[in-house]
Amino acid sequence: MIIVMKHGATEAEIQAVVDKIRAAGHKEHVSRGAELTIIGAIGDESRLDPEYFEMMQGVERATHIVKQYRIVSRDTHPQGTIVNIRGIPLGGEQIQVIAGPCSVETQEQMDLAAEGVVAAGCRMMRGGAFKPRTSPYAFQGLGVEGLEIFQKAARKHNLPIVTELMDVRMLDTFMEHDVDVIQIGARNMQNFDLLKEVGRVNKPVILKRGLSATISEWLMSAEYIAAGGNHDIIFCERGIRTYETAYRNVLDITAIPVLKRETHLPVIVDPSHAGGKAWMVPALAQAAVAAGADGLMIEMHPNPCEAWCDADQALKPQELKQLMDTLSVIAKAVGRTL
Amino acid sequence: MIIVMKHGATEAEIQAVVDKIRAAGHKEHVSRGAELTIIGAIGDESRLDPEYFEMMQGVERATHIVKQYRIVSRDTHPQGTIVNIRGIPLGGEQIQVIAGPCSVETQEQMDLAAEGVVAAGCRMMRGGAFKPRTSPYAFQGLGVEGLEIFQKAARKHNLPIVTELMDVRMLDTFMEHDVDVIQIGARNMQNFDLLKEVGRVNKPVILKRGLSATISEWLMSAEYIAAGGNHDIIFCERGIRTYETAYRNVLDITAIPVLKRETHLPVIVDPSHAGGKAWMVPALAQAAVAAGADGLMIEMHPNPCEAWCDADQALKPQELKQLMDTLSVIAKAVGRTL
Amino acid sequence: MIIVMKHGATEAEIQAVVDKIRAAGHKEHVSRGAELTIIGAIGDESRLDPEYFEMMQGVERATHIVKQYRIVSRDTHPQGTIVNIRGIPLGGEQIQVIAGPCSVETQEQMDLAAEGVVAAGCRMMRGGAFKPRTSPYAFQGLGVEGLEIFQKAARKHNLPIVTELMDVRMLDTFMEHDVDVIQIGARNMQNFDLLKEVGRVNKPVILKRGLSATISEWLMSAEYIAAGGNHDIIFCERGIRTYETAYRNVLDITAIPVLKRETHLPVIVDPSHAGGKAWMVPALAQAAVAAGADGLMIEMHPNPCEAWCDADQALKPQELKQLMDTLSVIAKAVGRTL
Amino acid sequence: MIIVMKHGATEAEIQAVVDKIRAAGHKEHVSRGAELTIIGAIGDESRLDPEYFEMMQGVERATHIVKQYRIVSRDTHPQGTIVNIRGIPLGGEQIQVIAGPCSVETQEQMDLAAEGVVAAGCRMMRGGAFKPRTSPYAFQGLGVEGLEIFQKAARKHNLPIVTELMDVRMLDTFMEHDVDVIQIGARNMQNFDLLKEVGRVNKPVILKRGLSATISEWLMSAEYIAAGGNHDIIFCERGIRTYETAYRNVLDITAIPVLKRETHLPVIVDPSHAGGKAWMVPALAQAAVAAGADGLMIEMHPNPCEAWCDADQALKPQELKQLMDTLSVIAKAVGRTL
Repeated sequence: MIIVMKHGATEAEIQAVVDKIRAAGHKEHVSRGAELTIIGAIGDESRLDPEYFEMMQGVERATHIVKQYRIVSRDTHPQGTIVNIRGIPLGGEQIQVIAGPCSVETQEQMDLAAEGVVAAGCRMMRGGAFKPRTSPYAFQGLGVEGLEIFQKAARKHNLPIVTELMDVRMLDTFMEHDVDVIQIGARNMQNFDLLKEVGRVNKPVILKRGLSATISEWLMSAEYIAAGGNHDIIFCERGIRTYETAYRNVLDITAIPVLKRETHLPVIVDPSHAGGKAWMVPALAQAAVAAGADGLMIEMHPNPCEAWCDADQALKPQELKQLMDTLSVIAKAVGRTL
Repeated sequence: MIIVMKHGATEAEIQAVVDKIRAAGHKEHVSRGAELTIIGAIGDESRLDPEYFEMMQGVERATHIVKQYRIVSRDTHPQGTIVNIRGIPLGGEQIQVIAGPCSVETQEQMDLAAEGVVAAGCRMMRGGAFKPRTSPYAFQGLGVEGLEIFQKAARKHNLPIVTELMDVRMLDTFMEHDVDVIQIGARNMQNFDLLKEVGRVNKPVILKRGLSATISEWLMSAEYIAAGGNHDIIFCERGIRTYETAYRNVLDITAIPVLKRETHLPVIVDPSHAGGKAWMVPALAQAAVAAGADGLMIEMHPNPCEAWCDADQALKPQELKQLMDTLSVIAKAVGRTL
Repeated sequence: MIIVMKHGATEAEIQAVVDKIRAAGHKEHVSRGAELTIIGAIGDESRLDPEYFEMMQGVERATHIVKQYRIVSRDTHPQGTIVNIRGIPLGGEQIQVIAGPCSVETQEQMDLAAEGVVAAGCRMMRGGAFKPRTSPYAFQGLGVEGLEIFQKAARKHNLPIVTELMDVRMLDTFMEHDVDVIQIGARNMQNFDLLKEVGRVNKPVILKRGLSATISEWLMSAEYIAAGGNHDIIFCERGIRTYETAYRNVLDITAIPVLKRETHLPVIVDPSHAGGKAWMVPALAQAAVAAGADGLMIEMHPNPCEAWCDADQALKPQELKQLMDTLSVIAKAVGRTL
Repeated sequence: MIIVMKHGATEAEIQAVVDKIRAAGHKEHVSRGAELTIIGAIGDESRLDPEYFEMMQGVERATHIVKQYRIVSRDTHPQGTIVNIRGIPLGGEQIQVIAGPCSVETQEQMDLAAEGVVAAGCRMMRGGAFKPRTSPYAFQGLGVEGLEIFQKAARKHNLPIVTELMDVRMLDTFMEHDVDVIQIGARNMQNFDLLKEVGRVNKPVILKRGLSATISEWLMSAEYIAAGGNHDIIFCERGIRTYETAYRNVLDITAIPVLKRETHLPVIVDPSHAGGKAWMVPALAQAAVAAGADGLMIEMHPNPCEAWCDADQALKPQELKQLMDTLSVIAKAVGRTL
């Protein structure tokens, strides 16, 4: 930790900081400049809190310099991690596109959707059985019945399924229904009890970024999962909240290269929720692949006009197929395959 | 709902919208302007989704005009609600200040804190036994033992206690330990399963605003609780996330008059978490009362230098007492008492 | 304009609104719903201010429905505009990359830079002679001498030059020195007097997006220029300010497809200022082209380690060349050429 | 400056940094920890750019530790500055309220407004002759004629006048018309050429905060003015842009105590533009005074319903008078007078 003393801090104030550093079992390093004195505290940083120092007389500010995340950091694992999802690799040379409707509605809808997923050349399927809705009066998902419908449709084509877990009490049910990838939604990115629980199971987890989560908080949330023993974590950028009202969220494309540098874990992008309109999806999906994403999660509905939620952000099966063709060329341009 | 057609929308496109409105059991009202055609859908709005219309050919945009929250709306309950907390009224003429440390640490600390709360003239006490921490390696609270310590200290002075519930599985424990007010933290403002559960119990709930929640989302989250039957809800503004890095959060003082107009429920302010520094607390607390807040939630620690978390945002007991004196005059200036 | 009356608005209040609409020379259209009454004002919207109505008794809110920008709107000019820059087309099938250093420093630097621009296959050059710096004590640019150095270097290779105008009093000098494209920087996006002046000259203008400008404000600023007679306007997305601190700005890739839909004018992207680090530039540049940008503005310096400002965001000439190769394949994938 | 080396930085990389520090005429101070090496550069920081170091191999990050603003800093001037405005002190014990309409419209309107200002007990008057409008088609102010009308109305009551300068070419006109306080609007906070010019005249300047300016950028903009010799600068907080759409801007009340700590210059608040609605003004104005503001700038119009711009944010003369009474009590509570 670095502690910067205030302009004009007294010797006694400096000594008090030094004493506190030593009391915590660390060593200090004092640099006296013409204008400022800087004190370094040498030792295991995670045991020192900057606030302890910032409230002392004469201290301007104190900052950690070692990152607070470890297991998920690329420092501890320089090679990229490839998460294995029922035999399908996510995080390697091949880019994976996870497609499917926002919500599970009916068996027929999911059967048609699964066919569309396969026809477009995608290898995994998404669909929500439990829906986080802003309004208590909106459709909340089919629940367990939805899981069953989803599995029935997907297994026919041997498609691994991705679905959102909102309530810690439903985790056993997810395991019993053999959900392949557990999705933690944006609103639950800092639901720490939920993170701890999915950290204890042996299933890949897609961790969506919170609506206004920093990169650092997002990495810390992944660290919560990893600390429990589950290292199969996939980051999913889905747009952040800004002042702009012309679209639902701002897809933060910069997060892709930055995360790839900070962590060894795969990074995927959800272009459908980000923009909120189907017509924006191709541009955003193409940008994500061009920027180095390891995968995409795209909403596709066999009949968007009849969708029960987020209707106007879903692609039609044919549109998805067409997009896959473009993505395939871009993937090659950046040294990947689709 | 109002549906604005695109410039140059065809008759067929307009008719398709009209047909869809009628199919949903509503009546339409078509206004043809020189440049634009506007269609109103008359009926129960909550059953119509703007997205259904926005994806239709020729539609520019569709918007709800009736608010989606009802029970918490002032429209349905013009007088302000006074929440009764073990005999103490929150929401009426008298402003309530809830004080206490960030975390429950030891019995001695809580005993001293309770004495400080009473000495300053506050009537309720706060303290965290379960702490939402960004890092899995940080102190996570004393848990159930913390609840016991807290109750022991508070009951001596007959102080109602306020403490945060993070995990739905701990609700029964909170009821058994007779927690007086359940606090839902900022990170859980859209943990909908947790909201539903606290909606079923008979305890006042303080609902903190999410880090980047809109006023409308916040009201909807309160509606989740209210829809379960629990109408004793208190909003707590605690600062929002912005681009500014000079302080932790920006206390959104405008939210106070706006909420007071939109809802009949009480609105309190947490000036300690907002600014993140003890020296900012008096200015923010004074501003909150001057702007019409029904109460405050202030961090106070008998010995801030030894606090286990958020150390530098806690007032000392003596500082709290002094602040109460100033607040008392401001309260009178705005027609309240303290 | 649509005026939504409050729940329970009286007949007299409704009539007052109707009277005001008629007094302004418009016609009204009243829709009475079960819960709400909506009034449409039919006529030339630009002459009605929603605020006039929102302050009336019984009015919930009033909103314009016709867009406030006209000349720059795609509605009035469905085909895309191609801006001609000394014979080089911007906005058509061919994507243009404008490269060069942040600041003009020396003749040698600019000569080397110009060679690098040409070697990489770029057709236009950028460089700042007048620099907007946050601190009054930082290097403010070489001024007029910088313009001369820049022109000397660029004309050798017949490269059109792009440079920033900050002060309305320097416009004549820019014209005399035959600057090819005038850049209006982010901080001046709403310097309306400057916009009016560049609207009167016959030179293409690159209008950078303000740090936290909405799409709509940006379009209105372009309309200021266009209203003066100069329609050769190019939008340049350069990142927006958000809460994220891990990088300088968030490149708003969604702005590309949205602008392309709203306006007929070309849209380019500055990936260098957005991220603020050279290592982020390739990912962001690739994303921009994949999302449909008409061009890029990239910082390149013959010797970044010696650059006088924004040193660590400039590519080396060789890095630029390599990036151009990748961009070329992506351009083809989206039906363009480079 | 502090330079933090990357985990695993080599000796050669450390040495290169040391060499660069020495080459700039500074001394270094190297602290080698178990995990990290930190290098301090001792000397005049303003001559070192963190970017020079951040682009070097092995460097994690470099940060200035000395503040970049000097003249405006409280460090260099511990006592608060009182700006004298034609005999009226701003920044001392007495709080000043500047009231008046958004725009100068007619002589009659300004005469009535001036009477209202005096009747309410305010000592300065505001009014805009040049208006920054988002749309080129909106009313742009009466210009020089407006200045004349304004002066005529204000001088009758010996009220100093405050009005906005947008264009550097109008500065002489402002001086000739003896404008008492020059207001720099939010959109021009980083119009550096304008700041330089008002830095050269001998008139107090109100510097409004940019829509999304940080405290630090705002202080640097004041430093631009101060560096020219004009130290009579008044900061005006007027709300910042956030994701919230329920009100125009978020009044950043925390900025008041933070600025008062950082600078010796007065800080005032504009509650009218912040919220955008007249009914929000009293709550925000009261909060500002309670938080320690040195003054307020409030919109008041003799007949808001007929105002030419920002109609629904202006108080009526009678409402202003009533607010002044409440503010007077709050001012006393915080040790001030009104």
